Amino acid sequence: MQPRPDPIAAMAAAVVNADRRAIAKAITAVECESAEGAALLKALHSRLGHARVIGVTGPPGAGKSTLVNVLIGEFRRRGRRVGVIAVDPSSPISGGAILGDRIRMIDHGTDDGVFIRSLASRGHLGGLSRSAARAVDVLDAAGFDVVIVETVGAGQSEVEVADIAHTRIVVCPPGLGDDVQAIKAGILEIADIFAVNKSDTPLAERAERELLAMLSLRARAAWVPPVIRTVATTGAGVKELADAVEAHGQTGADPRHGVVERLRRVVANLAADEVRSRIVSRDNPELNALAETLRRGEVDYREAALRALEVLGIRHD
Amino acid sequence: MQPRPDPIAAMAAAVVNADRRAIAKAITAVECESAEGAALLKALHSRLGHARVIGVTGPPGAGKSTLVNVLIGEFRRRGRRVGVIAVDPSSPISGGAILGDRIRMIDHGTDDGVFIRSLASRGHLGGLSRSAARAVDVLDAAGFDVVIVETVGAGQSEVEVADIAHTRIVVCPPGLGDDVQAIKAGILEIADIFAVNKSDTPLAERAERELLAMLSLRARAAWVPPVIRTVATTGAGVKELADAVEAHGQTGADPRHGVVERLRRVVANLAADEVRSRIVSRDNPELNALAETLRRGEVDYREAALRALEVLGIRHD
Repeated sequence: MQPRPDPIAAMAAAVVNADRRAIAKAITAVECESAEGAALLKALHSRLGHARVIGVTGPPGAGKSTLVNVLIGEFRRRGRRVGVIAVDPSSPISGGAILGDRIRMIDHGTDDGVFIRSLASRGHLGGLSRSAARAVDVLDAAGFDVVIVETVGAGQSEVEVADIAHTRIVVCPPGLGDDVQAIKAGILEIADIFAVNKSDTPLAERAERELLAMLSLRARAAWVPPVIRTVATTGAGVKELADAVEAHGQTGADPRHGVVERLRRVVANLAADEVRSRIVSRDNPELNALAETLRRGEVDYREAALRALEVLGIRHD
Repeated sequence: MQPRPDPIAAMAAAVVNADRRAIAKAITAVECESAEGAALLKALHSRLGHARVIGVTGPPGAGKSTLVNVLIGEFRRRGRRVGVIAVDPSSPISGGAILGDRIRMIDHGTDDGVFIRSLASRGHLGGLSRSAARAVDVLDAAGFDVVIVETVGAGQSEVEVADIAHTRIVVCPPGLGDDVQAIKAGILEIADIFAVNKSDTPLAERAERELLAMLSLRARAAWVPPVIRTVATTGAGVKELADAVEAHGQTGADPRHGVVERLRRVVANLAADEVRSRIVSRDNPELNALAETLRRGEVDYREAALRALEVLGIRHD
């Protein structure tokens, strides 16, 4: 009797072979957190580590998608195969990803060296970054040289995507009021490269000056994030942006650059989610009693957190 | 001999007494996560549960701060004492919170029934929501009837602030491109009330229609989020918004409404952070070996997460 063919192994092989239909199916499988998806990722893990992962984030209206679009073109000119994961919250109307911005990327729709996928989050913000990390694994295994993850600039996705990206580009619009000013400050820490987009508008110079002033106050020995002015609609500055990505790739100082570390961070986030939901669920009488203790002021937050971990079995070192 | 006076107890008493200087000092103490701050919160925990906590979030440029400003005025007219926590990433330039938007709130600067505080995050995005939850505790203990938490619309703060708020208002600008469309969809799940701000502009009707269309597709028995058109700069629609907040408060179905649950969620987030950082740190040889196992494809992500928890002492149920 013939052994039954292993559909997971076959699908993994097709992904590694860069079969576009297999890649699309694989991303759907890992996005749904199905058993098939988990087994598939497991089969792909040993094939990871080739891709350079680039996170592109920034506030709404900054022109991220248009910039990603021209960046794809620039990397293609340099002979790289480019995968793109666009992290979009799902729309209850479409039942899937909202197209919108994605439509602008059809420039590359017929190029075999480009694979673009917009992720549906199935209504759960926290799940977005998990899906993104898994989709990155698939594109990495499929041999893409560059994988761009574009986050929409809302929710916790930036922070967790920053965790898995080698190089993080923060796209700043030239000026959108005080909120953007605040955002710029808040994401300083996760930016490896700043792109001041729409830099043909009058406010761009001010934005660039402000960013440089902020950066000049930080002592960063290994890498000072460059501030690059771009006009995504014309492609101006995109060559410089791609150069900056390559230059940042040469530094390699960040421990996150290793694929083992990338996998480990995904695991750490999953484990943290598990612990959070066990503590929040009201099933455990010991945890219920602990919450009352906290309420009565008999323990402080930190003591309560360590005790909750003890209840779950984790001792404080 | 006299017993030494307990400075923590004295400060807690002053906070409960709504002493403004004590409140300000207390928020600073809890924001820094100092030992003093932890002891102070512990002393205040049994005084919590009076305040109604309202989260206000939305994309940059939606006019959140201006709306919060007029909402303060509306609640004051209704005889409520109002505390406001504005969650701002810190600026390396100012060394503290960026003022910007806050300046617009000076309308209420001399009103004793209003306390406004902008939080500095000390450069750590993840710490913002933790600081916010602690500052909410202080204002709750100080007897404010309403505590408004305004998040800047970036990072993971929305999601975690949503965790501690009784009522969550999502402020939508009338139109800012596809990104905003995506954001609207993504935050549908956390919105109890929608405010379509700047509704005197031509796009507002479309935004309202789109939101209503999305909402009509969701089966929500207990509470259907109302969509309220506001013009923050003139105050139009703000009475209706405050009415909606009060109406939502009457439902009381959400288990988060209990103060014990609020405290428990803070603890769950702290414990989850602790687990994440223990797994990410490369100190534990067993975890290092596990990461290599994952890399070789011998376990999948979920198995690895459960094993990591086992290494830390937590068994899978």
